[in-house]
Amino acid sequence: MAHFLSGRAETPTQSKILTYVRDEGPLSRIDLAGRLGVSRTTVAAEAGRLVELGLAVDGGPAASRGGRRSTLVDLDPGLRFVGIELGATSMRVAVTDGRLQVLARDSSPIEIRRGPEAVLAEALDTTRKLLAAEGVEKPAGVGIGVPGPVDFQGGVPVSPPIMPGWDGYPVRDALSRELGTPVLLDNDVNVMALGEQHTGVARSASDFLFVKIGTGIGCGIVVGGHLYRGADGCAGDIGHIRIDANGPVCACGNHGCLEAFFGGAALARDATAAAQGGRSPVLAELLEEDGALTAESVGRALTRGDAEALALTREGGRRVGSVLANLVSFFNPGLIVIGGGVAGLGHSLLAEIRSSIYRQSLPLATGNLPVVLSELGGDSGVIGSARLISDAVYAVA
Amino acid sequence: MAHFLSGRAETPTQSKILTYVRDEGPLSRIDLAGRLGVSRTTVAAEAGRLVELGLAVDGGPAASRGGRRSTLVDLDPGLRFVGIELGATSMRVAVTDGRLQVLARDSSPIEIRRGPEAVLAEALDTTRKLLAAEGVEKPAGVGIGVPGPVDFQGGVPVSPPIMPGWDGYPVRDALSRELGTPVLLDNDVNVMALGEQHTGVARSASDFLFVKIGTGIGCGIVVGGHLYRGADGCAGDIGHIRIDANGPVCACGNHGCLEAFFGGAALARDATAAAQGGRSPVLAELLEEDGALTAESVGRALTRGDAEALALTREGGRRVGSVLANLVSFFNPGLIVIGGGVAGLGHSLLAEIRSSIYRQSLPLATGNLPVVLSELGGDSGVIGSARLISDAVYAVA
Repeated sequence: MAHFLSGRAETPTQSKILTYVRDEGPLSRIDLAGRLGVSRTTVAAEAGRLVELGLAVDGGPAASRGGRRSTLVDLDPGLRFVGIELGATSMRVAVTDGRLQVLARDSSPIEIRRGPEAVLAEALDTTRKLLAAEGVEKPAGVGIGVPGPVDFQGGVPVSPPIMPGWDGYPVRDALSRELGTPVLLDNDVNVMALGEQHTGVARSASDFLFVKIGTGIGCGIVVGGHLYRGADGCAGDIGHIRIDANGPVCACGNHGCLEAFFGGAALARDATAAAQGGRSPVLAELLEEDGALTAESVGRALTRGDAEALALTREGGRRVGSVLANLVSFFNPGLIVIGGGVAGLGHSLLAEIRSSIYRQSLPLATGNLPVVLSELGGDSGVIGSARLISDAVYAVA
Repeated sequence: MAHFLSGRAETPTQSKILTYVRDEGPLSRIDLAGRLGVSRTTVAAEAGRLVELGLAVDGGPAASRGGRRSTLVDLDPGLRFVGIELGATSMRVAVTDGRLQVLARDSSPIEIRRGPEAVLAEALDTTRKLLAAEGVEKPAGVGIGVPGPVDFQGGVPVSPPIMPGWDGYPVRDALSRELGTPVLLDNDVNVMALGEQHTGVARSASDFLFVKIGTGIGCGIVVGGHLYRGADGCAGDIGHIRIDANGPVCACGNHGCLEAFFGGAALARDATAAAQGGRSPVLAELLEEDGALTAESVGRALTRGDAEALALTREGGRRVGSVLANLVSFFNPGLIVIGGGVAGLGHSLLAEIRSSIYRQSLPLATGNLPVVLSELGGDSGVIGSARLISDAVYAVA
């Protein structure tokens, strides 16, 4: 068992072996030879090389199927990946095994506005502590998602509206240097979409949208099973779709963006106005207790039957649903998954989003279109970040 | 030279040879062996088989490069494809060679509302006449585009709003039976996008949108060089994006769709109202001359400096641009091509579309985004239809 990793897949056959074994569990050499259309000798040689690279192990004899006994190929059980998700005000770090099952995780508040040096130092600190607690000397790779547009090839954020100081900062290379392992950087919404695809409700979907409603609003786009990032890497930036030219000012400088109506910050603003304007005794009480209201406060008011909280939720759901209805007409996805902090408002929000989509899009596009909440409870970002880097380690460079 | 075709590519190597030779012209066996990473013996054998299939010919000796002379492989010069584009009120049919250069074309008025039997009989008649005039016994395949959603796998239109009687009609199989050759059916906008990719302004773009503004409005989506059709085959149906819930009734039954504001029919309606309401002497004159106004009449009024025609064009361009701005934020394309009959309004329309997109989308997504008019002068649909079927004939079944 290798507790630090020397390599990554070197041939397409090695890459396919790793991906099959990651997604389906240990497989016999006979089985792999059949799936890959190559000889058992080739599988034995390639699997042997994967053992040397610290990526696979000999998994013992396979259950007999009558003929010659075959040997199982499995992922090295010491293989570890790290997934990091940075949000506007919180960070989550997880250590996973080679199949991207979360072995340990840590969540903590951060302020992304403090800039890359301060925030990445915290992320490194948490990562090192988790790795030490798990007895991992070096992970096979680290994936990280950040709440803004990313130049994926360059590994840097690009003009991120809510991340002052991060524009062009070499996040990928800085982390890779510090941790001595491959790192990949992507947008938070993209890695969340990957997490849903790997282990969430989108497991069997090849064309789907993951919509994050958090402090900001964004969308991960999966086409034919692969993330679609767009010509400049900023595809899915739906929070800045303009829904009313006379609407409130947005963090991006424009007026009337979707996010300015119903991001987490907008919802907190509207809830506070409702509390202070005497329109919701429940929200007023929560404001007095907590000193400030958040999207989560609106969720608590909802569970206490507050009419104003319900009205805010419905209005927001209608706006999100109207934007999504247009995207359904354009993109005709097979599934829409809703996640992010504000999605914690749950089924009142979901019902409104659904009815807007179903009402405004053509029947052909919505006839088989499930619109569902994420079921990963906040892990989609870290699992997806781990998936991002594992795909690279398991692929041919 | 084979004037009727027996086959299609049988191996991935044959498929690659055909595609290279289609897109780059005759290539020597040495050159092909190098590109494909196979031996010259293999290329010779596969090329020989393509000759037997009537797809390729021995193109004579290649220019010497010092070593042994090599033989050129070329497409069979007798290879012919047919591309058909059905619109709401017009049909275009073209016969192309194996490289999809148009050898002969025919345009004629049709009424798609007359239903599949009547319209397909006309299409078959025109096709047979063109083939006879070109001395073609049997084309290698036929591609056809229709103005409505299509089930590509099934080869049938699905609930097409402006094609009464066509829902579920087996267009592909009926034509294939009549012509005795492979046929593929797709949406008109999809085949136009393929035409732009094959020989138009989108030749070097891998992620782009083709927006058709004709009687209806639709959008072809190319992702990674391939058409994206969506989960139900109706991706790109942007004419039915709702832009104002209180807007005019649309052919689809909803209110305020983009198409109800600025499809060709809507523009004719608004132009007629302007003529009858005394707001445009030029349009009134054209109405009197022609008995009815069309999008083309508005174009003629534009060239005569009519202020009302300019106002209608600008207002339409603003509406289309607003919808496209949202799609740019979502999809981050590398290029947008505008085509279709109404695009004949030209640069007054284009300028308005561009300025709406640039004003309402984030700078990152528009910094390198060309928005251009199609330059194929109406041939994009027939070339794209031919491309659709040629891709299938040149590919392994």
